[in-house]
Amino acid sequence: MKVIKYPDKKDWHELIKRPAIDEKSIRKIVKPILKKVQEKGDKALRKLTYEYDHVELDHILVNPSEIEAAKKLVKSDLKNAIHQAYENIEKFHTAQRQNTIEIETTAGVICKRKNVPIEKVGLYIPGGSAPLFSTILMLGIPARVAGCKQVIMCTPCNRSGEIVPAILYTADLVGIEMIAKIGGAQAIAAMAFGTKTIPKVDKIFGPGNQFVTAAKQVVSQRGTAIDMPAGPSELAVIADDTAVAEFVAADLLSQAEHGADSQVILITTSEKLLNKVRKEINEQKTELPRKHIVQKSLENARLILVKNIEEAVQLSNFYAPEHLIIAADNEEILAESIVNAGSVFLGNYTPESAGDYASGTNHTLPTYGYARAYSGISLDSFMKRITFQKISEAGLTNLGPSVMHMATAEKLEAHKKAVSIRLKYIQENEKT
Amino acid sequence: MKVIKYPDKKDWHELIKRPAIDEKSIRKIVKPILKKVQEKGDKALRKLTYEYDHVELDHILVNPSEIEAAKKLVKSDLKNAIHQAYENIEKFHTAQRQNTIEIETTAGVICKRKNVPIEKVGLYIPGGSAPLFSTILMLGIPARVAGCKQVIMCTPCNRSGEIVPAILYTADLVGIEMIAKIGGAQAIAAMAFGTKTIPKVDKIFGPGNQFVTAAKQVVSQRGTAIDMPAGPSELAVIADDTAVAEFVAADLLSQAEHGADSQVILITTSEKLLNKVRKEINEQKTELPRKHIVQKSLENARLILVKNIEEAVQLSNFYAPEHLIIAADNEEILAESIVNAGSVFLGNYTPESAGDYASGTNHTLPTYGYARAYSGISLDSFMKRITFQKISEAGLTNLGPSVMHMATAEKLEAHKKAVSIRLKYIQENEKT
Repeated sequence: MKVIKYPDKKDWHELIKRPAIDEKSIRKIVKPILKKVQEKGDKALRKLTYEYDHVELDHILVNPSEIEAAKKLVKSDLKNAIHQAYENIEKFHTAQRQNTIEIETTAGVICKRKNVPIEKVGLYIPGGSAPLFSTILMLGIPARVAGCKQVIMCTPCNRSGEIVPAILYTADLVGIEMIAKIGGAQAIAAMAFGTKTIPKVDKIFGPGNQFVTAAKQVVSQRGTAIDMPAGPSELAVIADDTAVAEFVAADLLSQAEHGADSQVILITTSEKLLNKVRKEINEQKTELPRKHIVQKSLENARLILVKNIEEAVQLSNFYAPEHLIIAADNEEILAESIVNAGSVFLGNYTPESAGDYASGTNHTLPTYGYARAYSGISLDSFMKRITFQKISEAGLTNLGPSVMHMATAEKLEAHKKAVSIRLKYIQENEKT
Repeated sequence: MKVIKYPDKKDWHELIKRPAIDEKSIRKIVKPILKKVQEKGDKALRKLTYEYDHVELDHILVNPSEIEAAKKLVKSDLKNAIHQAYENIEKFHTAQRQNTIEIETTAGVICKRKNVPIEKVGLYIPGGSAPLFSTILMLGIPARVAGCKQVIMCTPCNRSGEIVPAILYTADLVGIEMIAKIGGAQAIAAMAFGTKTIPKVDKIFGPGNQFVTAAKQVVSQRGTAIDMPAGPSELAVIADDTAVAEFVAADLLSQAEHGADSQVILITTSEKLLNKVRKEINEQKTELPRKHIVQKSLENARLILVKNIEEAVQLSNFYAPEHLIIAADNEEILAESIVNAGSVFLGNYTPESAGDYASGTNHTLPTYGYARAYSGISLDSFMKRITFQKISEAGLTNLGPSVMHMATAEKLEAHKKAVSIRLKYIQENEKT
């Protein structure tokens, strides 16, 4: 942990620097994988799964009996927890539904905007050390609320060809009908290009390792939309002396356990709190099973002391963190000034892990400073907005001359003609 | 123009194929330009502008006297037209404002979603053969309605260092305070990385040639958001025998004049109409000043005869056109079935050029099939959505156990601890 006291504003840029991501070398590994899947389809998927996941798949798709078996293996405590999370996430994402907008901009000119679900979406769920069934809720529920017609999920299996029961249980719960036992860049390729078994989708969602992330970026340049660019997970905490050091330390550690490259930053106006948090982190970390990961990511942690709470907010906005906790007096008023962040957690009793799992907000959020321009996943991520317009004869008479003047000034005569030919027709019909 | 009668569904894929875009070779040209601007800033901008636009700039930014001069040069007819367009575009984009969503998902758990403007945005406006001041309205008005703090515009100047008056007039009208006389990939680099004169922005918008498009794609992989991927402009028309052939022909030609690579497609149930439209196109095109461009893009035009109107809609959805005109009986009912399109124009008196300029809808739309997953520019494109949550002690008591069960199942013990340490504190405080 680095402690920085009263940094000068001109050093902020250096202070919040994120580690560079070496995309180029990863892409070199990923591109041949994409090519193989594009050319050889399912055959390539089986071969790559054997190479990377060390399993010979007899069937690519999970079958109903596997789902049934999984349902029996998930304990009822966990089922109940998943159900509470499901309900909250569904409530919050249903509240995001937007009505069609319709207005008459000029007499006889009706403009409309309608939200339409993206037809086919693909969800990637990582396997590996932690089985992230919570991400299935975060992606599968809004896909369902949006009304996407086809939802496909890819997730790697273990060497016995099995998927963790909680993943299958949750996928079934959110109504995903097609689950493929494919992981890595090959899964992204399968959903982007389509194979005999796995349909081509319009948009791919979900987190993953650097190969998955690189594959998503490459396919996004070739016609398949992706949810957002991804980087290591981040948490900033703004705290004053009303914050509880034990809680702040626990929050910073909860972020630090995600991965060795996770970023955690404390911005505080209280030197006393800073010292207490540092002490608490060192104590609490010893008990954690993932302490080797925590230890590594803490090397990059920064505990920053600033002059006042306004500066804390400014520095946070400058950093644009994925997650932001505000544990300070008048947190709701401070929150009004937050302009760059993925998701914000207010007060002493709002741990970030509540939003990771069950409070209702989405946990797929912009990292790496992307919060300056990108939003986290919401219902809108699974929809597109189509505009419609209908102009009456009177409407075109009202609007047409302006269109013609502008088209002429832009030297687009055929654009003008498309109006004038109609106005002429209207005038001639009026005469008769 | 190719005429295709009653194509088999299995041939649709071939039928609507878009021309491949050679991105790789363009990127090779663009990347060194980006590097120069990133390293040498304004100096590189001046040098590149001399090389590509053949002008030695004495000042990069447009100064107030240039704006004042432009205001006098724009004729009042055009000013009035621009004002009518302005009002309609402002009305439609203001109607897109969304309220903050706030719900209590579980007792004591408040989740909120708030729309916040992107702070700094950059608009690129192409120069060249047609001065696209209409695009300034389409980007500048929603940026203003959203409340973006800084709006920068880049547009190339001519060899005398001048910008077309209508462009300066419109930029001033929408309140753009900083206009740089820089075009091409170097303009995108300047806005993405920042120079001494041009500030670094969070998101870049606007159309451009293949170099601009490639530069936008490259910077989008390096941390600057962009509006959307771009390809040649497109129009599909769905028509039955209630359509007016002269109008349909004029619409197809208005799209064809955009560029030699523009795509125009007629999908009709009426062979009579198809033949009439073909004849009309051949007649009308001879009068057009841009007929050399029109002639080229018509080579790729397709006039497709289908069995019934439902098939026409299906084929259009399969193609996912940027613009779609429905000139057919019951057009509003047919519109309900449109799921993939950028913007839809209904009826015989709704030419696409109305939406290009003045009806109120946005003309920056997804091309190249991206309409399957992307939306056109709207107010949301200039905002991001930040979620907030606040959990009370009672709320955490209600929600906490679920979070802990899920964190344990995902093997993230520090996530669990961030809750348990608080619950313990609450319990201990209750006792005392």
